[in-house]
Amino acid sequence: MNTSEFRRRGKEMVDYVANYMEGIEGRQVYPDVEPGYLRPLIPAAAPEEPDTFEDIINDVEKIIMPGVTHWHSPYFFAYFPTASSYPAMLADMLCGAIGCIGFSWAASPACTELETVMMDWLGKMLELPKSFLAEKAGEGGGVIQGSASEATLVALLAARTKVIHRLQAASPELTQAAIMEKLVAYSSDQVVATLGTTTCCSFDNLLEVGPICNKEDMWLHVDAAYAGSAFICPEFRHLLNGVEFADSFNFNPHKWLLVNFDCSAMWVKKRTDLTGAFRLDPTYLKHSHQDSGLITDYRHWQIPLGRRFRSLKMWFVFRMYGVKGLQAYIRKHVQLSHEFESLVRQDPRFEICVEVTLGLVCFRLKGSNKVNEALLQRINSAKKIHLVPCHLRDKFVLRFAICSRTVESAHVQRAWEHIKELAADVLRAERE
Amino acid sequence: MNTSEFRRRGKEMVDYVANYMEGIEGRQVYPDVEPGYLRPLIPAAAPEEPDTFEDIINDVEKIIMPGVTHWHSPYFFAYFPTASSYPAMLADMLCGAIGCIGFSWAASPACTELETVMMDWLGKMLELPKSFLAEKAGEGGGVIQGSASEATLVALLAARTKVIHRLQAASPELTQAAIMEKLVAYSSDQVVATLGTTTCCSFDNLLEVGPICNKEDMWLHVDAAYAGSAFICPEFRHLLNGVEFADSFNFNPHKWLLVNFDCSAMWVKKRTDLTGAFRLDPTYLKHSHQDSGLITDYRHWQIPLGRRFRSLKMWFVFRMYGVKGLQAYIRKHVQLSHEFESLVRQDPRFEICVEVTLGLVCFRLKGSNKVNEALLQRINSAKKIHLVPCHLRDKFVLRFAICSRTVESAHVQRAWEHIKELAADVLRAERE
Repeated sequence: MNTSEFRRRGKEMVDYVANYMEGIEGRQVYPDVEPGYLRPLIPAAAPEEPDTFEDIINDVEKIIMPGVTHWHSPYFFAYFPTASSYPAMLADMLCGAIGCIGFSWAASPACTELETVMMDWLGKMLELPKSFLAEKAGEGGGVIQGSASEATLVALLAARTKVIHRLQAASPELTQAAIMEKLVAYSSDQVVATLGTTTCCSFDNLLEVGPICNKEDMWLHVDAAYAGSAFICPEFRHLLNGVEFADSFNFNPHKWLLVNFDCSAMWVKKRTDLTGAFRLDPTYLKHSHQDSGLITDYRHWQIPLGRRFRSLKMWFVFRMYGVKGLQAYIRKHVQLSHEFESLVRQDPRFEICVEVTLGLVCFRLKGSNKVNEALLQRINSAKKIHLVPCHLRDKFVLRFAICSRTVESAHVQRAWEHIKELAADVLRAERE
Repeated sequence: MNTSEFRRRGKEMVDYVANYMEGIEGRQVYPDVEPGYLRPLIPAAAPEEPDTFEDIINDVEKIIMPGVTHWHSPYFFAYFPTASSYPAMLADMLCGAIGCIGFSWAASPACTELETVMMDWLGKMLELPKSFLAEKAGEGGGVIQGSASEATLVALLAARTKVIHRLQAASPELTQAAIMEKLVAYSSDQVVATLGTTTCCSFDNLLEVGPICNKEDMWLHVDAAYAGSAFICPEFRHLLNGVEFADSFNFNPHKWLLVNFDCSAMWVKKRTDLTGAFRLDPTYLKHSHQDSGLITDYRHWQIPLGRRFRSLKMWFVFRMYGVKGLQAYIRKHVQLSHEFESLVRQDPRFEICVEVTLGLVCFRLKGSNKVNEALLQRINSAKKIHLVPCHLRDKFVLRFAICSRTVESAHVQRAWEHIKELAADVLRAERE
């Protein structure tokens, strides 16, 4: 495919994407396919000679779309949102074209420098303590990781390296095995200190945990993967209180801040804690500025060596929405979850299981787990909306998460009418 | 930005990308900027109100491009190639629009199933032993990781879990610390068994290492991050001989197989080795098919939970190039590196430092490291081409890697003329 064909096909693809987004409400949110559906539909091996673009784009509708769960349908209320916005898609196109690998400053200075500044912008939106910012001469700073899991792993390894160095300095006679036996990682039942758990969006109290960690010289990592985006609104910022006690903090703009996956934002107070754990300096990556103290080589901040120019997505999204636009987006989702909550509360057959703080409503039919499992089964078999469950203590609970960028009150109302009808069926079947 | 504006802006972005690619040869391959150049050019915080798309796209030329190292310029000969092709960019647009997170089969069946089949297609192109393929009922299979580092880490953790289980079963009285002290990971000076090292593209002999690992019941992970793509050509496939002894194998189509970053292909012989180490089953990810044995939940194969629909890129690239097109692409690069090699060999002032096998030529001026350092310094200051060095034993060596999709003989010839001129300057300065 030469450049002039790309101009044509690229524009056709823009229209395909726009049509998909415009028509997504008309697609069944959850697919009908059974395991193994795809393999018989395509050849067993790659073609020797090229196929045409027409063949491929036709196969997208015939082979791919029937097996897609439509995460951006306004009837998708499962898991948590994954971000999707047009500005992020435009930025991704540019990112693909530049196609640089930003493992060092020299490998593409713009890639590194925009990331550092965007992480400062985002940190300021959240009113993070200044100690987490890079600014001109700070000791802290931010980095884009691929996922919250990677951020947690990076924090864990940095903490481990730091404490091993401390123990070795204090007691040089200790063997490595003896040191390993002394290491302790405390975790809640969701792993690390969490603001907005996946299960039910509950919050750990950092103002209790934080001072203890600081006193005991323990690394505190705070994960707000989903909830973090809400902290750009002053009315939710109090949920982040206590972050000043943390050594590292992470949340996922790729969940709820309109920056398409992947973009997991992580800050540390002391960047040397990361670079001390991950430093890697082969000759082919050395460059003239690296020991100047002036630059950041992000390969020392993460597990992988390679990295894309992901800060372009943040730049496009922050600028094209503006902080006010992003706040309005968060507020709309929270308002819709409260709307659903109030519908549930008006129906005496149902109960709300956890206080609704952000965009997630945990609810169930009063009664047995069995009846709730039956309800979820009916909902997901009907495939008009899509939900997933959770367990809270021993109770089987339905999660209703506001996810789509285009979800409106009408969709929430329709979803609730549908749930009520299926609940009536389930309760009738139970009585019979 | 609504859908109709996206139609317009998306098409403008397609043209911007096409223009960038068409004009890339005219851009200076390595930027002039100094550390910290970007921060003063943009505001200290995100705007409250939205900026316009025009503002942003103008800033791309004014602020971003002056700081970009142009990895896809035909004058970029540094590091190793990073893939860039139009079919992959089109697939990435579609991937962004579908925007699903494929952590389980149910989260988007097409995302999981296409990946499994594409990894089989690619495995067949490489003539991997059948035991690495999933096919209909195999025990092995492939997964797309983000990077070779992640693939190595996953292999290491899987190997560690496997041996811990074995030791615990054999000697239940061992404490965890005692087990930890027994664990050994053997590595070369490039970490794991490597086909095509980054430094100089050398090859470990798997036919020697493999049988020893098998006899000692040791996990063998083979990394062919760069070189792996070449194995789709029958004349290079012998370099992979011995992979039949490996437990896991990995290479990066995002380097040399025209599938834009990120796409690191990893295969294992026993998928249960991975799922045993990484299994994670919260209620909200359970689905009705998960214990059927019929489906793959890729979250058990990797560190992160989330994952994009990356197999679309493989599908588009493999189909639009065809195997023959991909082979032709590899062969062209190898031929260009031999062309450069023969130019170097014709000049008695220079020497070739390592046998040229694929697309990398390691060369230097006969003489001191100092004179070679001076040569590289002049090359990268002139910024007409871009190279990085390596150390081979104690020698400072220049790496000339064929990288760009659009590099032709004329670029290689021009690069060599330029290097010769600068070498003459360096040698003259040395004599004076």
